[in-house]
Amino acid sequence: MLKGNMLIGQSGGPTAVINQSLVGAILEARKHDAITGILGARHGIVGIMNEDFIDLTTQSEAQLEDVARTPAAALGSVRLKPGKAECKRVFEVFKKHNIRYFFYIGGNDSAETAYIIAEMAKEEHYDFCTIHLPKTIDNDLKVTDHCPGFASAAKFVALAFIGDDRDNAALGGVKINVVMGRDAGFLTAASALARQAEGQGPHLIYVPESTFNIVEFQRDVKTMIEKYGRCVIAVSEGIIDANGDPIMTSGEKDSHGNLQLSGTGALGDFLSNKVKEGLADDSVRVRADTFGYLQRSFPGVISDVDAKEARDVGTFGVNHAVNKGDAGSVSIRRLSSQPYESECFITPLSTVAREATSLNAEYIAASGHDVTQAWLDYLKPLVGDLPRIGTL
Amino acid sequence: MLKGNMLIGQSGGPTAVINQSLVGAILEARKHDAITGILGARHGIVGIMNEDFIDLTTQSEAQLEDVARTPAAALGSVRLKPGKAECKRVFEVFKKHNIRYFFYIGGNDSAETAYIIAEMAKEEHYDFCTIHLPKTIDNDLKVTDHCPGFASAAKFVALAFIGDDRDNAALGGVKINVVMGRDAGFLTAASALARQAEGQGPHLIYVPESTFNIVEFQRDVKTMIEKYGRCVIAVSEGIIDANGDPIMTSGEKDSHGNLQLSGTGALGDFLSNKVKEGLADDSVRVRADTFGYLQRSFPGVISDVDAKEARDVGTFGVNHAVNKGDAGSVSIRRLSSQPYESECFITPLSTVAREATSLNAEYIAASGHDVTQAWLDYLKPLVGDLPRIGTL
Repeated sequence: MLKGNMLIGQSGGPTAVINQSLVGAILEARKHDAITGILGARHGIVGIMNEDFIDLTTQSEAQLEDVARTPAAALGSVRLKPGKAECKRVFEVFKKHNIRYFFYIGGNDSAETAYIIAEMAKEEHYDFCTIHLPKTIDNDLKVTDHCPGFASAAKFVALAFIGDDRDNAALGGVKINVVMGRDAGFLTAASALARQAEGQGPHLIYVPESTFNIVEFQRDVKTMIEKYGRCVIAVSEGIIDANGDPIMTSGEKDSHGNLQLSGTGALGDFLSNKVKEGLADDSVRVRADTFGYLQRSFPGVISDVDAKEARDVGTFGVNHAVNKGDAGSVSIRRLSSQPYESECFITPLSTVAREATSLNAEYIAASGHDVTQAWLDYLKPLVGDLPRIGTL
Repeated sequence: MLKGNMLIGQSGGPTAVINQSLVGAILEARKHDAITGILGARHGIVGIMNEDFIDLTTQSEAQLEDVARTPAAALGSVRLKPGKAECKRVFEVFKKHNIRYFFYIGGNDSAETAYIIAEMAKEEHYDFCTIHLPKTIDNDLKVTDHCPGFASAAKFVALAFIGDDRDNAALGGVKINVVMGRDAGFLTAASALARQAEGQGPHLIYVPESTFNIVEFQRDVKTMIEKYGRCVIAVSEGIIDANGDPIMTSGEKDSHGNLQLSGTGALGDFLSNKVKEGLADDSVRVRADTFGYLQRSFPGVISDVDAKEARDVGTFGVNHAVNKGDAGSVSIRRLSSQPYESECFITPLSTVAREATSLNAEYIAASGHDVTQAWLDYLKPLVGDLPRIGTL
């Protein structure tokens, strides 16, 4: 049995349940003699390079349970995707601190980092096990049925649309809500859960997987106003035109070379103006909100299934590492939707690293501006019960 | 005893608990023989003028309880502040339908409408009782200790800042959150509830009651970054400069002549650019979110005290009207903060109509960019328990 220290880190955008995976891994690790020490890297890969560690063997269970219930990333996160030289440095640190188990909680970029390090260890015949623990509100990791973090963000979005649709019903007009999800429309599509009766919004749903056309958009809004006297719109921050170019960005790029889409109200204001232009009717109230970072770190409305699965992923990952010893990414397999049942399994790092997935075609309605029943069937058990909407 | 029909309407921006007041009033009215019929006006004063009513005597209690728990305004709301001619028309409709009890749920504008109609009834010797039922997330009504709707919005804001501060702690940089409240900083000040330990944000809080100065703002942000390595900022949508002019608006006015401040990301983006300019350091991540309409209609995180008091206000108003028969606005008197206890009472319509209040000076810190302990003592019992923040 591989014996030595364990290191765990968190990477990428926070989620409401990423700390469940962290705590699941820590508590499981404490049970195994193979793991001699448990270290946490502050701000992921950057903390490793700087040997900025925190000892995770001393905290009480009560403190860890508070951490588990707290959103965002308790160890600190990072947006850096390390190059070859940085991975080499990481590997030096691992050897220096006798790190034999490495757990990296993150998305596909983190899986790639884990993969590169695992390959380095193999080359140098350093006995070592790397496990990627999945998280992303975008739900865009390959292999897994869904990603820890997504369902809680989806619940937030569904609740936000329930409330906002009632708000719009009360005051009328057009309301545009910009939802997170750079390349994948999963989270935007979750807005459809808000509908409990005919006529309730969102009335239009635009995801990056369908080409967005301004003229069609203006026409769609007009149609909904004629039909319902109002219109609530869910639109992904990542919608693209026929050339594949983002409709609107603030022009700033992060260290992954990705355009900054969140933390700005630009797309909402742009679409708002387009709606006003299209309607050419000043009496129609048009408003836009950008849900922003609230979607991924809101503490009040975490999905029970999501919290449990995020915890399970951490527990399962450590267990697998100690007992099997081979590198991999923890994935979730859905066993049944009614009643909902799932299990964890290990998939090779290469199957999750780098490339992401997006909303399946079967989940997008033929109109291109709605979702299908199959999507709701997939999503509902993950999010759980939502409040019943009362109307007069 | 005054006998006849009752009419109830909702006005202004929705809240998460405005339907509690509606349902409280309906259920109480059903108990009194003096009230022969219960009508709801669709979209407030506009529904009255158009005789667009809904019969509120037939719904089951279960249906009404669903309505009570649902945010926004189940009868529909309206932004119209009626002039003299419109009030005359309203009064004609009242006589035609033998309306002897009128309940208007809204803010100070609605109290004014109720006041004008009450005066007309007096002049014409029409036996009639008007009651204003308070609601506003802005918390800016006079006389009352606080307004139904405010505490739930405050809870949303506090939760949002708990999550967003953890998010910012994980990834660093500057985060600006624009909070609702055109002229009053109550809701923005509620962000302070998010702090549970030294160093936790919001690190800066700007309310409309303190003059906002861009240069000071840039300096404050710099100071916080030097101190904490990051900075989370709560800023009211209604912040003004030394001339009393709003720092930024979209330029659109509503029918009350108020500038549109919500439903646009303009202020957040403007301040974001000012921070970048002030720091002159591209390595610092700067983001802005505008919480927007989510604050007032979010269904998942309603304050228990707020829901109960909103219900009480409706019940009390109907009871008072039937048993005392004099016009007025229902207000809340705080009897004790620990344990929290309150009671309803009636104040003359003229004391609540038109003019609003704002954040007391004792609640604003001397720095002008924070709140005081007195503010937290006032607010905490209204919002109730918040999740404990776990850190490593």
